[in-house]
Amino acid sequence: MSKNPALHNNMGVDYVIVFKYATTDKAQAEQRLEEMLERLSGAGLATEVRKGDDHSLLVFIKVGSKEHMQAEIYRNRVKDWIHGVRSVEPAMDTEKSLEQDPLTEAERLRTIHGLITHVRSEGGAGITPQKGKWQNVESVFALHDHAYNKEWIKKWSTQYLLKPEDLDEIRDRMGEKIAFYFAFTQAYFTFLAVPAGFGLFSWLFLGYFSPWYGIVASLWSVVFVEWWTHQEQDLAVRWGVKNVSGIDEKRKEFTPKHLVDDPITGEQMRIFPARDRLQRQLLQIPFVIAAVLILGTLISTCFAIEVFISEVYSGPLKSVLTFLPTLILTTGLPFLSGILTKAANSLTDFENYETEAQYERSLTSKTFVLNFITSYLSLCLTSFVYVPFGSVIVPYLDVFSVTVKPFADNAQQLETPDNASQFDINPARLRKQVIYFTVTAQIVNFAMEVIVPYLKRQGLIKFKQMQTKRTEKKTGIPLPSAAAFDPEGESDFLARVRNEAEMEVYDVYGDLKEMVVQFGYLTMFSVVWPLAPVSFLINNWIELRSDAVKICVECRRPTPWRADTIGPWLDALGFMSWMGSLTMAALVYMFSNDGLGPDGKPSDITGWALLLSIFVSEHLYLATRWLVRTSISKIDTPGRQKERRMNFVTRQKLMKESLEQTRMVPPPGEKADEITRRSLEEDARQGSLHDASPREKFWDRQRGWKEAAKMGRLFIERDEGDVSDEKVKKEL
Amino acid sequence: MSKNPALHNNMGVDYVIVFKYATTDKAQAEQRLEEMLERLSGAGLATEVRKGDDHSLLVFIKVGSKEHMQAEIYRNRVKDWIHGVRSVEPAMDTEKSLEQDPLTEAERLRTIHGLITHVRSEGGAGITPQKGKWQNVESVFALHDHAYNKEWIKKWSTQYLLKPEDLDEIRDRMGEKIAFYFAFTQAYFTFLAVPAGFGLFSWLFLGYFSPWYGIVASLWSVVFVEWWTHQEQDLAVRWGVKNVSGIDEKRKEFTPKHLVDDPITGEQMRIFPARDRLQRQLLQIPFVIAAVLILGTLISTCFAIEVFISEVYSGPLKSVLTFLPTLILTTGLPFLSGILTKAANSLTDFENYETEAQYERSLTSKTFVLNFITSYLSLCLTSFVYVPFGSVIVPYLDVFSVTVKPFADNAQQLETPDNASQFDINPARLRKQVIYFTVTAQIVNFAMEVIVPYLKRQGLIKFKQMQTKRTEKKTGIPLPSAAAFDPEGESDFLARVRNEAEMEVYDVYGDLKEMVVQFGYLTMFSVVWPLAPVSFLINNWIELRSDAVKICVECRRPTPWRADTIGPWLDALGFMSWMGSLTMAALVYMFSNDGLGPDGKPSDITGWALLLSIFVSEHLYLATRWLVRTSISKIDTPGRQKERRMNFVTRQKLMKESLEQTRMVPPPGEKADEITRRSLEEDARQGSLHDASPREKFWDRQRGWKEAAKMGRLFIERDEGDVSDEKVKKEL
Repeated sequence: MSKNPALHNNMGVDYVIVFKYATTDKAQAEQRLEEMLERLSGAGLATEVRKGDDHSLLVFIKVGSKEHMQAEIYRNRVKDWIHGVRSVEPAMDTEKSLEQDPLTEAERLRTIHGLITHVRSEGGAGITPQKGKWQNVESVFALHDHAYNKEWIKKWSTQYLLKPEDLDEIRDRMGEKIAFYFAFTQAYFTFLAVPAGFGLFSWLFLGYFSPWYGIVASLWSVVFVEWWTHQEQDLAVRWGVKNVSGIDEKRKEFTPKHLVDDPITGEQMRIFPARDRLQRQLLQIPFVIAAVLILGTLISTCFAIEVFISEVYSGPLKSVLTFLPTLILTTGLPFLSGILTKAANSLTDFENYETEAQYERSLTSKTFVLNFITSYLSLCLTSFVYVPFGSVIVPYLDVFSVTVKPFADNAQQLETPDNASQFDINPARLRKQVIYFTVTAQIVNFAMEVIVPYLKRQGLIKFKQMQTKRTEKKTGIPLPSAAAFDPEGESDFLARVRNEAEMEVYDVYGDLKEMVVQFGYLTMFSVVWPLAPVSFLINNWIELRSDAVKICVECRRPTPWRADTIGPWLDALGFMSWMGSLTMAALVYMFSNDGLGPDGKPSDITGWALLLSIFVSEHLYLATRWLVRTSISKIDTPGRQKERRMNFVTRQKLMKESLEQTRMVPPPGEKADEITRRSLEEDARQGSLHDASPREKFWDRQRGWKEAAKMGRLFIERDEGDVSDEKVKKEL
Repeated sequence: MSKNPALHNNMGVDYVIVFKYATTDKAQAEQRLEEMLERLSGAGLATEVRKGDDHSLLVFIKVGSKEHMQAEIYRNRVKDWIHGVRSVEPAMDTEKSLEQDPLTEAERLRTIHGLITHVRSEGGAGITPQKGKWQNVESVFALHDHAYNKEWIKKWSTQYLLKPEDLDEIRDRMGEKIAFYFAFTQAYFTFLAVPAGFGLFSWLFLGYFSPWYGIVASLWSVVFVEWWTHQEQDLAVRWGVKNVSGIDEKRKEFTPKHLVDDPITGEQMRIFPARDRLQRQLLQIPFVIAAVLILGTLISTCFAIEVFISEVYSGPLKSVLTFLPTLILTTGLPFLSGILTKAANSLTDFENYETEAQYERSLTSKTFVLNFITSYLSLCLTSFVYVPFGSVIVPYLDVFSVTVKPFADNAQQLETPDNASQFDINPARLRKQVIYFTVTAQIVNFAMEVIVPYLKRQGLIKFKQMQTKRTEKKTGIPLPSAAAFDPEGESDFLARVRNEAEMEVYDVYGDLKEMVVQFGYLTMFSVVWPLAPVSFLINNWIELRSDAVKICVECRRPTPWRADTIGPWLDALGFMSWMGSLTMAALVYMFSNDGLGPDGKPSDITGWALLLSIFVSEHLYLATRWLVRTSISKIDTPGRQKERRMNFVTRQKLMKESLEQTRMVPPPGEKADEITRRSLEEDARQGSLHDASPREKFWDRQRGWKEAAKMGRLFIERDEGDVSDEKVKKEL
């Protein structure tokens, strides 16, 4: 592939629009296409149309007019300045502004994306993919820079650690949102060295369930979360995106309840009362309860069945039945999760947020709840139900024998009350489960993420080819493939574009979610098996690289969005770090007997000791967090220094500009007459003559500061007990 | 007093400076005075000097030059605008600016105060009371407006509830800092109606230690704290002081470690590394430990002595000895608190903060720790040591019998081991203590705050008169009193000023602290005696009025500082509300047996149940707080609406100003040739002739959007399976 020069050459194309007309009436599609092309041209973009796959057109776009581009850059930069993202007003002359602050690849692409999607009143073409009247516009994407991608992957795969410059480069090309994901994962990876090292030590010398390991891991999680919160802001300053999340991108789906004319600006405001939204948000409570019940029931049932089959049941078909719970889980869980995710989406839609940021935040919190249950519930069941209460609960699992009745040869096999009551828990189950989640699941996940999609796409291509051939065989005429219309010398290039058009959209939040879930295993359960962080360390080294490969090979080139934070996931990290202080303490306490844990009879556990360890651990955690947070917030970083300096310069400049017209007012003139008895007496006379008010008299006694000073000196000098007040009075 | 017209008339005086020369060399004092008067005059202020009490001068100040005043107002408003306090740049023409946004009394006084104290480079006189070379300047204060004060107190004492307008008026006259105190206390007072009502109901029907009361009180505290946090911001917007705390007032005491020239601005920067400060701040840990140990030991010892004497000891002098612990406490506690407060001050000085806000925050947190121990420790001892473990611990108090030995007539009386081991705790002790703290102490406090200072001052005046008379008797010559030098017709006025000069400075943080401590009793212990909030309700009604009286009668007129929050005390409120969820749960659980509590033998309390109730209560609290906080943050208030609108207007204006020069660029010209086979063929020929690059060829195929649209139409129309690709290719 790399030998073909077309792959390195994007023909100067900036963006590609995929225009589908499969489901639309032809005349309408043509009219829409025409309107779209006209609008793009109006926004200063040059276009070329080519044939795409599956009843689609590929509309190629490049910047046609430098003026439009510069106007858009200027508009964007002014907007940034107004929202406090830039501290200095951009120069009116965009050429100059670009000299001071050159355009990165990411800003360039974002600007062109803006030209395509922004409303026309703001100078864009107003093309909104799959929304409103642009249902035909399936996607808008930039083409991969294959030469760069190749170099990128080559560099990363031969480099142990990513340097800040590597992250800067991602930011320059992919935008800050993706750069934040890589920066976070890299920071997490680097930090992991500590628990991995201590975990290995702990595994070798301290054994499982070591309280020391628990303390180190918990402390580590606090420091990491607080450090990242701080580092994030620093990165935002470094990348010049601080306050970007304050630029509220309005959601097009927002439907106001009523329109109000603002009394001051006269502008029409789209209002949706907060009270109404709050009422709708209350639906989150039943949603969460339902999610917990539905997913919880499924997971607990499967868990119970598994325990029953593997540890109680001794009937026929045991080897087959063992796979039953796994089967139920792997089919049922994605199905139910899918339904609940859809419900979460609908609910968030219904909550009718005004801005994208609010929408995303609300959706993330719901996603987090679903993920929390699916990821950690079964481990919680093993730790806090199966191990401590196993012997009490497991005998009741006999209910399931009804289910297995059809498989039983005779009733005898099912009557195993003796067996059940003498049931012994399997202390290795918890560790096995943790190993599964921290090693096996990570590998499976990697496969699902990188390898399976690749195979799937290859299979799809094969399948299509076969289908075409079959149709051709049936009709006798060869079907016209899109490539048949390709002008000479463009077929390789167009084939590649068609290929990229079929790729997935890169979902940076999905990848971030994965890291957050992994962090949860570490903070909440790694005390069970202290090698978990070692596994994560290895996994994340690969993950960082495989995500780069994924972006390059399996996804369309992502639009370089900006961000100044990893968003609501940060709260999730904090929450799980907190939960960790509870679960780790409980696990350490319960399993402190050589890591075997209680024998399944709850009498082994002293309630007050368990609660006390949790209580103490949690409060130590909270106190430590407060301390760490306070300390970290005081550390001065290059980003903060830069920010402070920029603020100072801006303020200085504004102050100077504003104040330069206020000249220093000259001090008021002075009449420094000698204070003599005569002049004072004269004053008194004049006072009585003019019948001045007491106030006028008061302020007339001393004229100018020199007289006041003389009077003061007199008072100071005569301040002795050796003269009668009468005498002094006379002298004055 | 009120009949004297001078009292209503401040002679047009804006500020008074008290210049003491008792401890300075006369020549130096004179020179300083002269410099001061010259500087004041330079800043456009008119001055008059009169004789004060005790080797002091009264320097009267009024605005002499309108230009200086307006320049200062303009400077201040520009500063506000730059720091985001004002959203609109103030008009250059101050007359106009004052028309749009008239000067309040508070802003006027603050401006004049600025003229006196600001450095000369900023247009002020640079007089800093008691600092640097202005050691002689004892104080700078404005004169009371007695007519207004009288009206104010009359109005408030006849009005049940304070209205927002009343608070606005305080803000206009006393500044936002004091207004925030009154607003907070008023809000707290209003909110108190709920727990007071429910407390009364609870006392009548539910008895002591009702879990229902605990839940209501805890929920109430969450709502109140969160509501106030929200309301505070709203008030800040209403009063136009939002972000005022962002204007960092530099501390004059700050000593930098090194001076660095900023590479960009060339300005000299005073640097004190955060790391150095953090190291110094670590001293807070031993400080807190020392405070806990010192105060804790004193309080516990007195507590133990008291228990011993009142409940174990039966020797002689019992009635006298009962007062021993009270005596130790009332002498020892203020003494030790005083030392610790001094230590806190020194420590905070040593921490070397750059701004006043940081300094105040750090000092407040230390003060809070000291107050927390002195206020709540003895209640904690009774609740969580004496009542549950009394029978176990009290017998050991026999140690004290050594102390009382001298009083005992014979050894017999001290040997009471039988008595001690059969010791029964006094279940009423806790309630009595709570009643003491919530009723008696409030009344004592009121007396200490309002009545005692009044008596003290009256006494002082009497004492001085007597002393003067005695000296006069001894020397035979009458001493010259300050009044002896008064010019005619001014003696009443000057007497009043001398009186005001001797008054205390109003300490708004002290009053706020009192409210916070009271809130702590409510959230942490009121379940013991649910009538506590009723007592607080009554107390605070009086408190609000008596504080007004205190400001008017006992304090100098306070300088109207600004603030946009009640500051670090807000964190203290949150902390105590949280602690309440622990203590209330523990109290309810332990005393659930008819409010009598455990009998002093710890076996009565089940550890796990106690811990479980605390644990559950705390987490319910945290979850509720999160919910309440989220809900409240979404409520739209007039202040937020105003803020949003102002931001919008400002942004709109800036955007318009910036963009009006960018004209809309006209769409690029079009050459809409007909696409014919011929023209395409010609293009191809030309392409091959000119040997154009593939890229040029690519973009030359369709000229202008109309050609692209035509091509697109062709593609759409011909997109059928009924023609061979060869055929279509030919047609194109």
